[in-house]
Amino acid sequence: MPSAEIVAVGTEVLLGDIADTNSQALGRAFAEFGIVHQRRTTVGDNLERCANAIAEALARCDLVVTIGGLGPTPDDLTREALANASGAELVLDEEAKRTLRDYLQRRKREWSDSFGKQAMKPKGARLLRNDTGTAPGILYEFEYDGQKKTIIAMPGPKAEFEEMLHGEVGTYLQSISDATIRSRTLKIIGIPEASVAEIVSDILKSENPTIAPYAKQGEIHLRITANAQSRERAEQMIKPVEEIIRARFGKAVYGADEEDLAAQVLDLISEKRRSLVTAESCTGGLLGTRLTSIPGSSGCYIGGFVTYTNEMKARFLGVARSDLSKFGAVSEPVARQMAEGASRVTGADYGVGITGIAGPGGDTETKPVGLVFVSVSGPDGTEVSENHFRGGREHIRFLSTQRALEMLRNRLL
Amino acid sequence: MPSAEIVAVGTEVLLGDIADTNSQALGRAFAEFGIVHQRRTTVGDNLERCANAIAEALARCDLVVTIGGLGPTPDDLTREALANASGAELVLDEEAKRTLRDYLQRRKREWSDSFGKQAMKPKGARLLRNDTGTAPGILYEFEYDGQKKTIIAMPGPKAEFEEMLHGEVGTYLQSISDATIRSRTLKIIGIPEASVAEIVSDILKSENPTIAPYAKQGEIHLRITANAQSRERAEQMIKPVEEIIRARFGKAVYGADEEDLAAQVLDLISEKRRSLVTAESCTGGLLGTRLTSIPGSSGCYIGGFVTYTNEMKARFLGVARSDLSKFGAVSEPVARQMAEGASRVTGADYGVGITGIAGPGGDTETKPVGLVFVSVSGPDGTEVSENHFRGGREHIRFLSTQRALEMLRNRLL
Repeated sequence: MPSAEIVAVGTEVLLGDIADTNSQALGRAFAEFGIVHQRRTTVGDNLERCANAIAEALARCDLVVTIGGLGPTPDDLTREALANASGAELVLDEEAKRTLRDYLQRRKREWSDSFGKQAMKPKGARLLRNDTGTAPGILYEFEYDGQKKTIIAMPGPKAEFEEMLHGEVGTYLQSISDATIRSRTLKIIGIPEASVAEIVSDILKSENPTIAPYAKQGEIHLRITANAQSRERAEQMIKPVEEIIRARFGKAVYGADEEDLAAQVLDLISEKRRSLVTAESCTGGLLGTRLTSIPGSSGCYIGGFVTYTNEMKARFLGVARSDLSKFGAVSEPVARQMAEGASRVTGADYGVGITGIAGPGGDTETKPVGLVFVSVSGPDGTEVSENHFRGGREHIRFLSTQRALEMLRNRLL
Repeated sequence: MPSAEIVAVGTEVLLGDIADTNSQALGRAFAEFGIVHQRRTTVGDNLERCANAIAEALARCDLVVTIGGLGPTPDDLTREALANASGAELVLDEEAKRTLRDYLQRRKREWSDSFGKQAMKPKGARLLRNDTGTAPGILYEFEYDGQKKTIIAMPGPKAEFEEMLHGEVGTYLQSISDATIRSRTLKIIGIPEASVAEIVSDILKSENPTIAPYAKQGEIHLRITANAQSRERAEQMIKPVEEIIRARFGKAVYGADEEDLAAQVLDLISEKRRSLVTAESCTGGLLGTRLTSIPGSSGCYIGGFVTYTNEMKARFLGVARSDLSKFGAVSEPVARQMAEGASRVTGADYGVGITGIAGPGGDTETKPVGLVFVSVSGPDGTEVSENHFRGGREHIRFLSTQRALEMLRNRLL
């Protein structure tokens, strides 16, 4: 199997100004194509340190991919660094120069040498298209201590990086790949992590495919990863393990890979030709936001109410003012009346009500931060759950919407 | 100045399963304390490669901080790796052993050697408290080729890592710091990146403090960074540059550092003792979510309507059905009537209406994806903006809420 390393270049990454999501995406691509990936090195915008990192990586693996430092500013030094590390001579690519010249002419700007350096490449290298920015990427295959080595240089801006990864770089990675790692992630809701791990403790030791649990916000993921000579074979290896897991967890497995909980709830409602409305207090519209992040959600989600004040709850949802003063806004009867009221005033088949204390502050002796009532009303009655979530404000808000989606899903299945 | 490197350990990071936000947070802490940070190395859960990475880093700098691989599973090898790299002997820490034993007893679980390895440390090292998980961190100061070196080992789970970073590790970093890098980020709204860069092109070349522009979603940040012997001196160096930038951009600078646009809008409304209501279509509650993510938002934000269907717009906001059929839901008159209607039916002083096509799909010949009307109504009348945003669904939705906040802010200033 070919081996690769990443050299990520950028002072802003070392300073912690940005999260290096490009390296993450490239790591995922290596895994996808079965390319062994044992090290990632991050250095700042410094010629010597960048060249050293590339040279060290070349000594350890077949392919080094650099990310960042290809632009026109004095900070952009990766081109020179990879030439120094590989002993290559930098030459001008005439076609790239013409492209850059045209670009400047359209913008009525003058040619400058610093801008022109983007057309330079190691002698014998091929430039990679960049339709989103000005700096082309570089693909350089050469002999190094008698061995065939490759350096790929990719631009740092996320949009340019991703386009190139899905384009020429992806094609190249596929061409050198001789094995495939496939993985499948099963998503589990409503069971705590410790219990999930216990239920699959026997198969967690499996070596190929491997099974690994990941705790996510309000759900647990089990990732099955198989390493084989072909995609088909890897998928065949994953299938029986997936079946075992699905059999053990039953309907707690709500989906796999990119499947989304909100999307599934919307699908279930659409299938039954029903409609949904939301009434949110502490989540302030987050459940509506999650539902409407799914294209086509307007098919069954008609909308909702953000009733942040008692007055809004009473006036638009018909929550009894006497209950608001007797039990308080964060209470079982109010959650119930929010869901039922939203459903009644709009005519929607299913209603959701969420009221709670997301903190920080707002808690009382009997009502701590994290206390959230979630209610689902529907043709078959109303159910209210009392939840005690832990964590910060955003975490509590997210878990509240997660609980609402879980309750809706259970109701609809 | 002391120099440091990070060795991040975890196969899941290399596979791209998770973003390495811990290294990012640690990089930020190094910058904060003026610790020179020139390289970060990421390796998988492999003893030899992890030990090599630590040894190489030790040869280059004063302090090596490892992240991850301290837990009880066979994958957790960082403890052994750092012992191998530094030539240390691992010994049992009796106090840590007692803590682990108590932990197991409370959970009625048996002691095992794999669990017990979390109490091991290099001879002469000090363990660092971990109140969130079971694996303590390690602080090991020792002589290496005649030089004083330090290794700090921190746990990988985010909550444990952050607690330790803000606790004993932060205290240690401060104690070795003899210079300080301070930075201040000014946040600019309503001006495109290219224009921002042009307006400050003369000072972008400054070396200390440096000024760097960053394009964020719907706003541009200018970061001023000064390197000095003391926090006070660094802040003195930043101040005049901040004044120049504020003078050039005027009210387009909406805040600095952690200041939030939604929080500022809420403050402005509260100051005037006014109230706000929202009416959202394509954003589905995202504006409400952003407003209510600010603790205390209930002081002036009364709530809102997610009117995803025409029926909801007509029934609850009083949008004229004739206008909905004549101009369509995505139109100037409908946006206007959404804001005004929400304000009228609730009695709130300011109303926001958002209606648009977030895509993918839903576009027509005359109404492309990205067309969003944003309306703000208030005591001094109603204003509607027609926006043509580019990008994916979530980006368009975010920019729509950003535009709404910008319009509200301009109205209130």
